[in-house]
Amino acid sequence: MEDILNLRYALDTFYFLMSGALVMWMAAGFAMLEAGLVRAKNTAEILTKNVSLFAIACVMYMLCGYGIMYPDGGNGIIPALDFSFMFGGDHDPAAVLKQDPAGWYDGDYYSKMSDFFFQVVFVATAMSIVSGAVAERMKLWSFLGFAVVMTGFIYPMQGYWKWGGGFLDGLGFNDFAGSGVVHLCGAAAALAGVLLLGARKGKYGPNGEVRAIPGANMPMATLGTFILWLGWFGFNGGSKLILSNVGEANAVAAVFVNTNASAAGGVIAAMLVARIIFGKADLTMTLNGALAGLVAITAEPLAPTPLAATLIGAVGGVLVVFAIIGLDKLKLDDPVGAISVHGIVGMWGLLAVPLTNADATIGAQIIGLLTIFGWTFVVSLLVWFILKSVFGIRVSEEEEYEGVDLSECGLEAYPEFVGSRGSSV
Amino acid sequence: MEDILNLRYALDTFYFLMSGALVMWMAAGFAMLEAGLVRAKNTAEILTKNVSLFAIACVMYMLCGYGIMYPDGGNGIIPALDFSFMFGGDHDPAAVLKQDPAGWYDGDYYSKMSDFFFQVVFVATAMSIVSGAVAERMKLWSFLGFAVVMTGFIYPMQGYWKWGGGFLDGLGFNDFAGSGVVHLCGAAAALAGVLLLGARKGKYGPNGEVRAIPGANMPMATLGTFILWLGWFGFNGGSKLILSNVGEANAVAAVFVNTNASAAGGVIAAMLVARIIFGKADLTMTLNGALAGLVAITAEPLAPTPLAATLIGAVGGVLVVFAIIGLDKLKLDDPVGAISVHGIVGMWGLLAVPLTNADATIGAQIIGLLTIFGWTFVVSLLVWFILKSVFGIRVSEEEEYEGVDLSECGLEAYPEFVGSRGSSV
Amino acid sequence: MEDILNLRYALDTFYFLMSGALVMWMAAGFAMLEAGLVRAKNTAEILTKNVSLFAIACVMYMLCGYGIMYPDGGNGIIPALDFSFMFGGDHDPAAVLKQDPAGWYDGDYYSKMSDFFFQVVFVATAMSIVSGAVAERMKLWSFLGFAVVMTGFIYPMQGYWKWGGGFLDGLGFNDFAGSGVVHLCGAAAALAGVLLLGARKGKYGPNGEVRAIPGANMPMATLGTFILWLGWFGFNGGSKLILSNVGEANAVAAVFVNTNASAAGGVIAAMLVARIIFGKADLTMTLNGALAGLVAITAEPLAPTPLAATLIGAVGGVLVVFAIIGLDKLKLDDPVGAISVHGIVGMWGLLAVPLTNADATIGAQIIGLLTIFGWTFVVSLLVWFILKSVFGIRVSEEEEYEGVDLSECGLEAYPEFVGSRGSSV
Repeated sequence: MEDILNLRYALDTFYFLMSGALVMWMAAGFAMLEAGLVRAKNTAEILTKNVSLFAIACVMYMLCGYGIMYPDGGNGIIPALDFSFMFGGDHDPAAVLKQDPAGWYDGDYYSKMSDFFFQVVFVATAMSIVSGAVAERMKLWSFLGFAVVMTGFIYPMQGYWKWGGGFLDGLGFNDFAGSGVVHLCGAAAALAGVLLLGARKGKYGPNGEVRAIPGANMPMATLGTFILWLGWFGFNGGSKLILSNVGEANAVAAVFVNTNASAAGGVIAAMLVARIIFGKADLTMTLNGALAGLVAITAEPLAPTPLAATLIGAVGGVLVVFAIIGLDKLKLDDPVGAISVHGIVGMWGLLAVPLTNADATIGAQIIGLLTIFGWTFVVSLLVWFILKSVFGIRVSEEEEYEGVDLSECGLEAYPEFVGSRGSSV
Repeated sequence: MEDILNLRYALDTFYFLMSGALVMWMAAGFAMLEAGLVRAKNTAEILTKNVSLFAIACVMYMLCGYGIMYPDGGNGIIPALDFSFMFGGDHDPAAVLKQDPAGWYDGDYYSKMSDFFFQVVFVATAMSIVSGAVAERMKLWSFLGFAVVMTGFIYPMQGYWKWGGGFLDGLGFNDFAGSGVVHLCGAAAALAGVLLLGARKGKYGPNGEVRAIPGANMPMATLGTFILWLGWFGFNGGSKLILSNVGEANAVAAVFVNTNASAAGGVIAAMLVARIIFGKADLTMTLNGALAGLVAITAEPLAPTPLAATLIGAVGGVLVVFAIIGLDKLKLDDPVGAISVHGIVGMWGLLAVPLTNADATIGAQIIGLLTIFGWTFVVSLLVWFILKSVFGIRVSEEEEYEGVDLSECGLEAYPEFVGSRGSSV
Repeated sequence: MEDILNLRYALDTFYFLMSGALVMWMAAGFAMLEAGLVRAKNTAEILTKNVSLFAIACVMYMLCGYGIMYPDGGNGIIPALDFSFMFGGDHDPAAVLKQDPAGWYDGDYYSKMSDFFFQVVFVATAMSIVSGAVAERMKLWSFLGFAVVMTGFIYPMQGYWKWGGGFLDGLGFNDFAGSGVVHLCGAAAALAGVLLLGARKGKYGPNGEVRAIPGANMPMATLGTFILWLGWFGFNGGSKLILSNVGEANAVAAVFVNTNASAAGGVIAAMLVARIIFGKADLTMTLNGALAGLVAITAEPLAPTPLAATLIGAVGGVLVVFAIIGLDKLKLDDPVGAISVHGIVGMWGLLAVPLTNADATIGAQIIGLLTIFGWTFVVSLLVWFILKSVFGIRVSEEEEYEGVDLSECGLEAYPEFVGSRGSSV
């Protein structure tokens, strides 16, 4: 039996590590997506933000975030303090193998280190969502200051309430891989930032007209979308948390199929809607459709049939087009559509769970949605406000006109391509 | 024993899922390769095509393609109708574990969902091949119409004949991972499209001269090639279909080594041939050499020694250079060389099988080759012809001159890079 | 028990193959990083170099490198000759299963083919390091000539001394995944090349001033860094060589966590140091910080706590900034900072091992460092010198001014982007 348990533990740990590696790869996806969707003059800065926010997330989550989210104790609202992770340590092999095989999957059936690795790339994902929405006008160092608080405290707290076994979990709130805990959370923090930051110069005309500001590099944006699509198999697939028997392996495989199906549904729906509204096959809407499909299925990628998953994604794809148009009407300037994709569609994902999962209730889903949004939005607003008051969060008008690459990073993303700073908007 | 069977099932399922994720990643590879090899003014459209054809493939294969290719019954030519996959379901764990361990690998030894996931990314690969060949001049929506028929019917039918246990399989036709079923099939559909579509304006001069139309973004094309190379480990490696014992694990590892060796052989051979012919180390030919090596070994990546695999790839690398030159002589305009890489070299891959696999016969290989090519070419020609008659398949001359990005997608891929629409060809 | 051993063997083989695939992906990372950091006019050539050096590494390592590095015998300094790998073959399943389970992990517990696959992508990594340092002025074919010797002989010899069980291993030299064997080795070969090659025209002014020559495509460079970061999980994670029980799975997971933590530490440290020195958040230094963190932890990614790993990476991140500045003071022109990242920080990685691993001694680490550097540098210098004498290694001044893309590859990387050859430096 020890031989079996060794193998089970190794296989489930490996499954976590491979899933985590795929999610880590999503950091590259967000970086490429956002770099492709901003103007050339703001590209180096958003790349710098994406690399450094990932690093900050890894350090903060190690220092305190992981301990807050998965504490040794707590009352369901306030977790017990635990800063031990940074000093390492994992389950003792001898103790692991003495566990009762019957209750194996309730015990320590995979490496704690692999668990951290899987979790830390999730917090980075949530933070990546923020960077796109505040692009092209925010001060880099204020953004990084926010990243410290977000990844070390704001995200872990609400993560504890659901995945750490807190009160939302007790209420029967369902969120398989984080339509709420990750995506809505990131979008709520982004929304708070956008409200205090204001729109880019020239985005909204004096008579209420909305000016399109096209992204500088569509192949990059498309690459970013494909990277995210691939990484999402780790994001959702790994969130099953077990693989090592027939039933669980089937479940993980179903999650892969549904995640893919929902993304496909989102693509087709967003493309058709954009065709109807704009008369063309708008590439950025198509990409947002893929991401919307992925966000939509994330709250419940296991229960739906493949056909239902496709439809859940398709609804996400329709929603995202109208959400992007709607936010612009409200003059909420989100250069990459992050609030629409992760926030509006994240809510749809949470509310769609009871459609296919009989254990979920619409009431618990709404409570979870409001809690995650409310907590993240209010605390983020406070943090952004403090940053704004103390350091300022917006670059000067001249810096914005010149591009934040020069003012924040001191270099250009495409220095040789004549015209790369020539956007007149 | 149940414990062992649970682990085997989980490991083989995981192996399928990881392989499938790698193959899914090839969709990004084709998108980047093709986006890099077309002109800037046609880049957004080919990105849109690549994202949307993947989505269409996923939906069509779920709705009917998978059922056609792997039916519950059929006479070897016509499969039994089966539309059940979209409603989900997988092997019952209790029934799986009651299987006789001795006949385990003939039974349900891995998740059906993981099988679908692995298969669906193959059909997307076949369709991706088409998009490159018809680039820069085809109407987007007609292309997507063809994608519906190709992924829902044309590909699954010939797939059934070989991998679904149809008549080609019965004849002893060998095609391990799809030099024929995937690559030749895609190339045959592409050839039919190119014939009805005609060459790009200006590609062939009035006196028979061939004008080079360089791709706009070589780093993208190179990235695409590396992505495809990586994804091919899933494509060929996963096609062993079993991993969970010593002999099978050895086999999968041999497939990885040979796939890599053949790509390496293709690179070196194509580079040297290009050096001799053109006097320079032509990067696009080098990239095509890598892909040719990968296509060549796909029909039989297990039997060859590493040295033989390198040589099989090298022949592919030589062939692809001459094939590209030859197709241009025939005025068959294929902007990315897809027909040469996947069609001509795919044939070489099929015919090379008997060189290293004693179970294969040249006769069966030729029958398989002709069947796949004939079926796909004739039916594709018919579908393209109907599309051409009803909707048209080619954009107007003016749209072609302006670039299909503006006419089909309403946006540019590189809007800020002055001169990005400046190609005079 | 046979069932268990089959599963163990399959799981460890699969772990090798997935790790190897991730390391293979690093080839794309180096290609993108280097393509982003050179000028547009030299981009196609460096892409060609990266694709073809990978192919050469695969062929040479198959023909002789693997046999030299992991021979059947030898005296610890000179390996026994063994050219058998190219003809294939793997462990006999029946013999494998007859091994004593107690001594299982000392025997043939995973596929030899998977071992080759994992090792071959390491030699390609070492060679990729060289290509960046000699960019923008070296003759392509001379570079490829060096690649043949480096991957077929220079690298395998010193690899044998450590990982093949040679004298460095006997002395207690510690190098878990190759801060020395791979990274320092690559950097030493690069340094030798740079010394004989000289700096790019215009890099160093007549009065000793250093002119910045910005890279043409920062999104590409960032993508390359993310790819390398991802691939490093295979590089370090796979170097544990066993996964299939609780203790080993924990170890692999710890390696993943520490590798990630060290990269994060490198990013933050390099960014802060660059901010202090240059006043801006320099993106290229941030990227080099990530790579420095990864190189630094590679010699010992298992023993440190996550906090210690972060600090080891942070020291690497500080070092790399000063190393890049220092090499420029010495007029050693390394366009991508490869010697600093892989050489200087590689040395730091080796010397840091005794800080956390009680089995390591600073004496053995220094001997290993000097041996690897001395061997590689001296033999490389000789090979570069012969190449220089016979074929020349530097393009003409006019070719350098025009860009090596035209002279070496006969095509441009960005032919349509006006100004892409407009860099005046």
